[in-house]
Order: sequence, then structure tokens, then C-alpha cells
Amino acid sequence: MPQYQPYSQITQLLPVSRMNRYIQDGDNPDITEERKKATFDVDGFTEWYHGGAKRLQARREVEKYVEDHKELQDTRPTPFMSREELIDNSVRKVAGMAKYHEMIDMTNIEKTTYFIQMVHVRDGQAFSLHYLMFLPVLQSQASSEQLSKWMPRAVSGTIIGTYAQTEMGHGTNISKLETTATYDPKTEEFVLNTPTVSGAKWWPGSLGKFCNHAIVVANLWTNGKCEGPHPFIVQLRDMNTHKTLSNLKSGDIGPKLGINGSDNGYLLFDQFRIPRENMLMRHSKVLPDGTYVKPPHSKLAYGGMVFVRSMMVRDIANHLANAVTIATRYSCVRRQGELAPGAGEVKILDYQTQQYRIFPYMAKVIAFRIAGEELQVIFKEISKKLKKGEASQLPDIHALSSGLKALVTFEVQQGIEQCRLACGGHGYSHASGIPELLAFSCGSCTYEGDNLVLLLQVAKYLMKVVTSASPNTNGICGYLHKKSQSNVSTLSSHKTYSDHQIVQDFEHATRRVVLQAFNKLKTESSIYKSHEAWNRCSVELTKAARWHIRLYIVRILLLKVSQAPEDIRPVLRTLAKLYIFDLQVSNKGNFMENRYMTPQQIDELKSGVSGALATIRTDAVSIVDAFAIHEIELKSVLGRRDGNVYPALMEWTAHSHLNKKDVPDAFEKYLKPIMENIRAKM
Amino acid sequence: MPQYQPYSQITQLLPVSRMNRYIQDGDNPDITEERKKATFDVDGFTEWYHGGAKRLQARREVEKYVEDHKELQDTRPTPFMSREELIDNSVRKVAGMAKYHEMIDMTNIEKTTYFIQMVHVRDGQAFSLHYLMFLPVLQSQASSEQLSKWMPRAVSGTIIGTYAQTEMGHGTNISKLETTATYDPKTEEFVLNTPTVSGAKWWPGSLGKFCNHAIVVANLWTNGKCEGPHPFIVQLRDMNTHKTLSNLKSGDIGPKLGINGSDNGYLLFDQFRIPRENMLMRHSKVLPDGTYVKPPHSKLAYGGMVFVRSMMVRDIANHLANAVTIATRYSCVRRQGELAPGAGEVKILDYQTQQYRIFPYMAKVIAFRIAGEELQVIFKEISKKLKKGEASQLPDIHALSSGLKALVTFEVQQGIEQCRLACGGHGYSHASGIPELLAFSCGSCTYEGDNLVLLLQVAKYLMKVVTSASPNTNGICGYLHKKSQSNVSTLSSHKTYSDHQIVQDFEHATRRVVLQAFNKLKTESSIYKSHEAWNRCSVELTKAARWHIRLYIVRILLLKVSQAPEDIRPVLRTLAKLYIFDLQVSNKGNFMENRYMTPQQIDELKSGVSGALATIRTDAVSIVDAFAIHEIELKSVLGRRDGNVYPALMEWTAHSHLNKKDVPDAFEKYLKPIMENIRAKM
Repeated sequence: MPQYQPYSQITQLLPVSRMNRYIQDGDNPDITEERKKATFDVDGFTEWYHGGAKRLQARREVEKYVEDHKELQDTRPTPFMSREELIDNSVRKVAGMAKYHEMIDMTNIEKTTYFIQMVHVRDGQAFSLHYLMFLPVLQSQASSEQLSKWMPRAVSGTIIGTYAQTEMGHGTNISKLETTATYDPKTEEFVLNTPTVSGAKWWPGSLGKFCNHAIVVANLWTNGKCEGPHPFIVQLRDMNTHKTLSNLKSGDIGPKLGINGSDNGYLLFDQFRIPRENMLMRHSKVLPDGTYVKPPHSKLAYGGMVFVRSMMVRDIANHLANAVTIATRYSCVRRQGELAPGAGEVKILDYQTQQYRIFPYMAKVIAFRIAGEELQVIFKEISKKLKKGEASQLPDIHALSSGLKALVTFEVQQGIEQCRLACGGHGYSHASGIPELLAFSCGSCTYEGDNLVLLLQVAKYLMKVVTSASPNTNGICGYLHKKSQSNVSTLSSHKTYSDHQIVQDFEHATRRVVLQAFNKLKTESSIYKSHEAWNRCSVELTKAARWHIRLYIVRILLLKVSQAPEDIRPVLRTLAKLYIFDLQVSNKGNFMENRYMTPQQIDELKSGVSGALATIRTDAVSIVDAFAIHEIELKSVLGRRDGNVYPALMEWTAHSHLNKKDVPDAFEKYLKPIMENIRAKM
Repeated sequence: MPQYQPYSQITQLLPVSRMNRYIQDGDNPDITEERKKATFDVDGFTEWYHGGAKRLQARREVEKYVEDHKELQDTRPTPFMSREELIDNSVRKVAGMAKYHEMIDMTNIEKTTYFIQMVHVRDGQAFSLHYLMFLPVLQSQASSEQLSKWMPRAVSGTIIGTYAQTEMGHGTNISKLETTATYDPKTEEFVLNTPTVSGAKWWPGSLGKFCNHAIVVANLWTNGKCEGPHPFIVQLRDMNTHKTLSNLKSGDIGPKLGINGSDNGYLLFDQFRIPRENMLMRHSKVLPDGTYVKPPHSKLAYGGMVFVRSMMVRDIANHLANAVTIATRYSCVRRQGELAPGAGEVKILDYQTQQYRIFPYMAKVIAFRIAGEELQVIFKEISKKLKKGEASQLPDIHALSSGLKALVTFEVQQGIEQCRLACGGHGYSHASGIPELLAFSCGSCTYEGDNLVLLLQVAKYLMKVVTSASPNTNGICGYLHKKSQSNVSTLSSHKTYSDHQIVQDFEHATRRVVLQAFNKLKTESSIYKSHEAWNRCSVELTKAARWHIRLYIVRILLLKVSQAPEDIRPVLRTLAKLYIFDLQVSNKGNFMENRYMTPQQIDELKSGVSGALATIRTDAVSIVDAFAIHEIELKSVLGRRDGNVYPALMEWTAHSHLNKKDVPDAFEKYLKPIMENIRAKM
């Protein structure tokens, strides 16, 4: 193959062993050549990326375990399975997990979730909500008596649970849920009822066919008064026969864009009775006589949301890491077109446009992962404080977690699509693995809170902060109460652009956007009712929320990179700079308003972007190697470590049912008669 | 239901009959209320939108025809079908089409393609390339003798053809295709051969299982010399048994993100012989003795590409129209959250953020459709001129069609995703119909030319124009050689912002971007080899290409709207203004550089955007009604004309295989044994 040297290869080669040890005999020489160029210690990067030696070790154990147990793996690539086969496959693996449930360790959530992820990857499965929602909610909402009754069976696996809150016609605004739980003091029971079809519980994973219990959220009525939505634990199916109990109607809601190994379901109650004890009573209670006892005001629930979203931010960043790995490796074995005339076809990653498609998202993998990790650290801290009754930071953190979830899920999905496009035609084939990644990630923009609703919550919080009488000038919103130290940016060269200057410039831009939204809101409020004024400003308000979150990401990214091990700091710095400069160039208007930055300074940042692209080009494959995504998780022909993509693509076709016969049945059935008919007439 | 009046409803109601006649008894009152607010004649809009009464009539005939023939319809919703069932379903409908082939009229491409589209919608099918590529290429590349031999059988339907150019390892750069056709003068045959797996023909629709002929593009070797890629007509399967001929290997390439009713396939040749006469010889020839005869230089092939892309731009805009119809109608029957406290839940379309998610894409439907229609008009004109040997305009038009394809396909896909998000959780269900729209449209960014490759072609053309000695100052690039009439925008109020001012401001911004790219290229060229300089500028060059296309769209949009019938002109103007102002606000940096526009002027445009959102809110449902998309094409529970979404969602679940049994087999097979086991131990 032509040995075209990309202009960007400016680094001196270093001994293979020290740097990138992913090289093996029989690999595609085009990808080996890339690995030889590594300028940093890939293993060191991996250890940093995965949060240290101990956590990395736990990952390796899980990987080894799943490698060693065929029952925990797919029998063939899932894209070739029908919906029914997907469900069968995922339930088979669920059974496998139950068999090896030494790996399910609720005291090590990270290891346990990674185990579940390695087994089920992106197909969804009957137990996902059992671990992610049913158990946690039980733990936080059940009284101690209730815990001792339900927990053992819930953990042992005879109870398969889900969390049923969302209804066909009701999502975010849970006060309007139609499902009612009316207390009957005569029998000391709650009567669950679904008044209309739009009140059907709709979407909960495994509600359709596999769970036998659910925590159902319903509006509580007692003594003729509605006390709002409360959680109840409800048995849905017979524990022996698994038949649906009478006065219930449940089923599968049908195929989805992705996650079709899961039986997201519906559930309707027809005057269905449960004992009073099945209301989860840690916080509020209904006494035998029907008296409602208010909960002692508790913000702990808040904390739960922060936790789930911090997990989401990290996981979703990991999906992007998968897509970036696939696109980067493939772009180094795919050759197309010539740069230097006559020099032969080049690796498509040598095109600047291809680098610009992929590398900014490679940078976002790092930025989003750091933000997600940090969110988990913060969560642990505030949980401690909350137990001591300190809740002062909670609004900051709740806003931060909501905003990060919204921003990251949306940009990850855009990034996965860019990676798909970067793989050209093959990106459209399930052989790439990207359609599954895309379908899976799309969902995350909606569940756990619609992104726009979340951004408006952030905006509401920001507007409060702006008008706060006693602002915390050191807090996460301190910048809103600072004056700009200068009304022009001090950027002279992107090479000398310091972290301090960068943060200053982002604070300036963000402050402007937030205050512009605030002023618009003030103006509109002088003309319209407050709710109408709010609605008229909401597009501007969501922009303000996004900038607040971006500023946070930029700040934490620069901080964590400056603390990274010396050997990997340079490559991390380049990625961080790419993320930051590209953000500034793509939003140059926000930096140029009132000449805070000049077109020349924007040009300087543009050179920063192209410089970063060229530098990252050298290390690209080694960086994605360092993400250390196991091939069982990657599920991609294009992203294979060995780069031997083309023969593997041909092998892939062997799984197609259509290839079992030379002449397809549909031809005999439909086309042959017609053709004979036509020929007869000719 | 609460009768909350959206603030944006400022229009006086007009008699239903004159305006929106889509209202029927039994409709959801929430959607009827919307239709009553129509401020324009919906039928008039539909007639304009579909290019006049005659073309609209042809559409209606096709719709009636497909409604009347059950064999041309799906037996059940396609998302519930496995890949094999999808294929069976689509071939069954293909057979149906052959039966009723009075509807296949190659002299009325628009009617014929709409017929095919109504029957197959978005599932893909075995004949698609037969009509879209095989027949057209045959017509343009075959000599008259060849036409008289092949055409009758190709049209009658005994030949099912496809077009096999792309290979596993080779796309855009066809000079590097590995498949060879070597002429053997002894037997007067061509020997087709596939030297390596990466040379396998890969992707062509219906190549896998259903076509029996293909036009194969291979590198022609004769007298020991390679003459480059040429087309050959090749029989692949026996005409009676449909068995694959010997020395060929072909099959299905497996599942894709979408279009899974089509058997995109692979094909390998092992020294496969075809008669000399099977080389398509209209342009170049190989004589019996092997002498290669060069083609008389012809740019007609060019024209073909323009045609295909003009079709694509229109079709892809139509997919966006589908998604916008679904999101808009659903947003008027979905109620969630309160605006005025205590006033009850509002239609989600009353939220400005929801309007901003959908309406800019409603505007793009109009903008892109107009651009696509115009491209077809231009194509017809230049085809005439080409026949007279006039090719002067061809570079303009080729660049325009390439750029429009790239810009429109990408933004349509983004728009469909926004519409999916606008439908909340239900947008993720196949019941919405949006996953299919999304999957289908994603492909269009890659096929018929990768979007970035196309944009770089546009950029190459722009750079030529900039340096042209004798520029055509009236042509499509005339603006590049104009001076700005002023170095500040004359915009004072968005209400008085004239078409002339708008075009002037876009010309200024576009000229700047193009000249910036040109200057960067000049600078880099003074340092690096030309190809390297080009690559280093390519990100900036693609930006320049996008702006050139945007300027064209803005100009043609304003022109066509000004010529539209008086009654619908106001609503079209509002949509056009939304498209334009949003483009300016989202790219304010390009308008603010060197203070061409002030922050105050940008704020003025922002008010223009919010004003347009509020105005469109009133007519939103009537506008999408006016697109007049038939429900057979819409395939959406959420987008139903009658707005009775929730009962229909419940009915939808009846199609799920999982719901045929209460207790799923997978439970008996895998979970029951384990649970009994656990209980035994307890």
C-alpha cells in the first residue's frame, strides 16, 4: 500500500512497547502504523480515564468474566435478530446473570452496572429497571418494616420489579397523573384505578411481560381529598404461573427506535385492590382510619435525581466514546482519493474535513466524562451534608445536573451521527455498530426529563440567582455578580492563551447571555403576565442555561487536565483546547458582541483549531485505544482493533437469513408467476 | 378539556368551509379548534405547494388508486415485521405494481415515482433501482442498437436491473474501482473479475437476491491498457430458475439503519465472461479487434447527476414535511403543564420552546421544496441548451445541485430528529412514524455523493469563480464580484426589512466568508504544496460552500413567495422571514463582523423570530394540513388527521407478537426454573 505520510506527522517515533501495546501480528498495517506514532503512554491514559488502577482492575475482572461465560454473550450479532429473538436472547442472558449473581454487588454499583452493560450492551433487558429504579426507589421510599418484608425477595430475584410512573398522556407534570389510589377504610385497602386510556401506565421497561411487581405512582385519595402522587408497591403477576392478575390489563407497547430487547409496557387498573401496607410509607403515611400524615419536608428525593443524572452523563459520554473509536479506527484503514497527485489513495483521516468531523467529539468524550465524574463526586459530598440537614448547595447542584444531562445527551447524539457520517456508506450498515449506538442514545434526550424542560429549570434558577439579594460570589454562579475585568479579550495568540484568560472570556460571554435573557424577561414582564412573559423569553432562556453549563464544563475540564499525569497532559491539553476553541469559533457572535473579541482574535482561534486537528491526527488511534472499550461492548466490524475490516464485512453477511438460500422464497411466490406470464405474452 | 387561549391567537375566526376543510365529526376537539383558526385557504396552499391543479390532480389519482387496491398496501404496520417479513411484504407489493403497471408511466416520472412511493413508502423495494438508475442509465449510455435489444424487456419487467458501481472499498473515487473488464479479442468477450474482497460490488439495491441483471461499472482493459471505468450490462441470474450464474457470488449485505425492505447486495466476479456487445457503447466503444474508441467529449452525464439531485432535494424536503406534520398535529392534542397557573394543562405547541423546535423546520420545508422545484426547472432548461452544445451554465448548476443536496439532506435529518424530540417519549416509539423517517433520511447524507465531498466540489468551483478573469456579474455568483454598497446593514426594523435589504446583507456575509476562505488558501499556498494548502483550508472552504448555497435559497425563496397567490402570500412570507431571521440570529457572528450589524440589529431580528413563531402558531395545523400528505404515506399514529391519538396508540399494541400470549415463552424457558430454584432454597 502507498506509504503517504500525512503532513501532520511531526512526532518522532518512540519504542512501541512503552507507548501503544495494542499492536499485534496480523493486524492491518495501516492501523499498526498509527499505533507506532503514539506520543504518550496509552496504558497511563487508560488508567487515568477509568479513574485509577483499582477501578480499572474491576473493569478487567468483569470483562474476563463475561469472556469466560458464553451464556452471557449473544449467540449471533443482535441486528440479525427479530424483535422476538432479541427478547429471547436478552432474557436468556438475564437468566445467565441470575446464575452468576456473585457479580451483582449492590455495594459496588459501578462494577455491577458495568457487568450488566457488558452482558446486555445496548439491547435493553427485562431486569434493567429492577436494578436502576425498583431497588433504589424501594430503598429510599420504603419504611424499615417494608424494607425487611420486600428487600430479600427483591434482591434474591424472585421479585422482578419495575417503576411505573409515566402514563400515555402524562409525563413531566406528575401532579396530573390520572391513575388514582383511593383508600377504603372498611377493608383497609387502596383501590387502584385507570379512568381513561390516556391514564394507562406507558413505557416502563419490562412492565409488558416480564416483571411481576411494580412501584406504581398514583394520585392518593383519602377521606375525599387528593393528597397528590405517591408510590405504591403492587404485585402484577402470579408468582408461580406468571399469569397477569385479574382486574389488570398489561402488555408490550410495540417496537421502538432502539432498545428492542426490552418489553416496555402498558398497564391499566380496573378497581384493583392492594393492602394499605403497600403504600411506601417512609415519608408520608395513611393511617388505618384514612388519616393522611404529611412527610417531614425532605429534599432527599432531589439527591436521587442528581445521582441518576450523574450516572447518565458518564454513560452517555461512553456511547460517544464507542462511536468515536469506531470512526477513528475505520478512518485509518479506509483509503479514498488522493491528496498529493499520483501519491496513491490516502487514509480518509488525513482529510482535515474528516478530522473536523471526528476530533471535536473525541474532545467532548473527555470533557463530558470529566463533568460526569465530577458530578458524582459532588453528589457524594452533598449526600453527606444532606444527612446533616445542610441543603444550601442543593439548588446549584440540581441545576448543574439537569443542565449537564440536557446538554450532554443532545451533543452526544449529534456526535454519534457525525461518526456515522464519517464512516460513509458503511456507517449506515449495522455492521458498523453505529445505528445501535445512535438509536440507544436518542432516547436519553427525552427520558429522565425532557431536555428543554430541564434547561428551563436551569434558567429559572439562574434568574433567581441574578436577583438574589445575598449572592454567593464564590459559588458556581459567582461569575454572574463579577464585573468584567476588561471589556476586550486579552487573547493575543492561541499558543499563549492561558486557562485564566479562557475562563475570563467564557465568563464574560456567559454573563452577557444570562443578563440579556434577564433583561428581556424584565421588559416582557412589564407588558405581559409573568407566565406569558416567561414563555415569550423561553428560547432566550434556554440559550442562557446552555452557556451556564458550557462555562462549567470549560472550567472543570481545564482544572482536571492541569491535574492529569504529566505524560498524558499534553495530549489532553490539545483535546481541551480543541473543545474550547471550536466552541468559541462556532459561537463567535457571542464573543464578538461589542467588539469584546476582534475578527483577528477569532482567526487566531481558528488557527488554534486547525493546529489541534493536525496534532491529534498523530495520536488519534492511540487515544481511542486508550478508551479501552472491549470488543464485546463495541459490537462493530468497522471499529475492530485489528483493522481487518473488509474480510470481516464479508463474514458478517453469513448471518443474514436471506443468504441461506440462493433463490429467495419471495421470488418463487410473487415474481416468477408474473414473469412467466409476461414472457408468454411476448 | 380546559379551553386555554394561546396568547398568539390574535386572528378573527373565518367560516370553516372557506379556509380549512379538514374538519370532520368525531375529530379530537383540540385539533378542530386549531383548524377553525386558519387565516388562509388551505386548498389554495395545497395547489400552490404541489405545483398547480394538474399535478395535484395526478397525485389524487395515484392516492385513490392505491386506496382502492389492498394488494398495494401493507398487511400490517411494517415496524412489527421482521426483516424477512419486510422483504416478503415489499416483493408482494412489487408484484402488485407489476400487475397494475398502467400506473408505471415513464413519460410522467413524477406520477410514477409518487405511485411507487405510495406503495412502498420508506421500506425500500426490489425494483427501486430498476426505475431510478437501471433504466435511466441504459437510456443515456446504451447505443441505439443496444436500446432496441434491452429496453423492451427492461420495461416489460422480465429484466429486473440494478446499477452496480460502488465497491466495498471504493466509493467516490471511481477511477480506483478494483473490478476489471478485460477484453479478449480471441472470443470477442470481456472478462469481468474481482481481484480482492474490497473490490466486491457492495450496497446496490436489489443486487442481493432479486435483480437478474445489473449495469456494472468496471475498469476497462484492452490491448494491455486501462481506459478507466466504463458501464457493462451483465446478466446475473437464470431467467427461468433465477439461480445465480456460475463464476458469480452474490448475496445480501445484512440489516441497515433503515430501508430494510430492500436487499442491498454484494457481487464478486470470478473471470466471468460477457459478449463485447454488452459494453454500453453510446459514448465510447471497443472494436472487435480490441481498439478503444474515445467518446466525443460529452457533458451529458453531468446533466444526469443534476437531475437525480434535484429529485433528491424535493423528496428529502417531503420527508421533513412528514415529520413536521406529525410533530405539529401531535403538539396540539398533547397537553402538559400549565402556563397560566390554575388554567389547566395547555397544548404543548403553546410553549415557545416547542414552537422553536418545529416551526423553523416548517419554514425549511417550504424553502427546500422551492429550491428543489427550481432546480428541476433549471435542469430542463440546461438539458435543452446542452443538446444544442451550450454548456456555459453547467458548472454553476452542477455546483448548485451538489451544494443543495449536501445542505438540504443534512438539515432535513436534523429537523426530523427535532420533530422526534418534539413528540417527547412517544417520538421514540415506531407508532410515531418518525424513527422510520429518520432512518430513511440519514442515508441521503451519504449516497449520491458524500456531503463533505460535494461541498468541497462547490468550494473548488467558488475559488475558480473568484479568480476568473471574465466573471459573469449577473450569474449565480455575480455577488462575488460586487462591492458592498455599504459597510453597515441598513436594517432598522424587522417589519420593514425588505427583500432587497435581506439579499444585500446575505450577499455581504457570503462574500466575506468566501473571500476569507480564498485568502486563507492563498496564504497557505505560499507555504505548502497546493494539495496540502487545500486540505489545510478545507474546513473553511466547506463553510464558504454552505453560505453560497444559503444565499441561493434565500434569494429564490423570497422571489417565489413574492410571486405566490395573494391569499397565501402572508403565511408564506412569515415562514420565509422565520427561516431567514433564524439563519441570521444563529450565525450572528457572520453579520456582526466589523460591525456590519450591531447587537441592536441582531436583537431586532430576534424579535422578528419570536413574532413569526407567535403568528405561525395560529395557522400551524392548517399549514401542515396544506402539505396534504396522505395517511398511507404518513404512517403515523401521532400524526393522524383526526387527532384521536391515545385510543389509536392502544390499538397499535395489538400488532405486537409479544401480546399474543399472556405469559411469554421466554419466561417459561429461562426465568421460571431459576425462580423455583431460588424459592426452594428460601
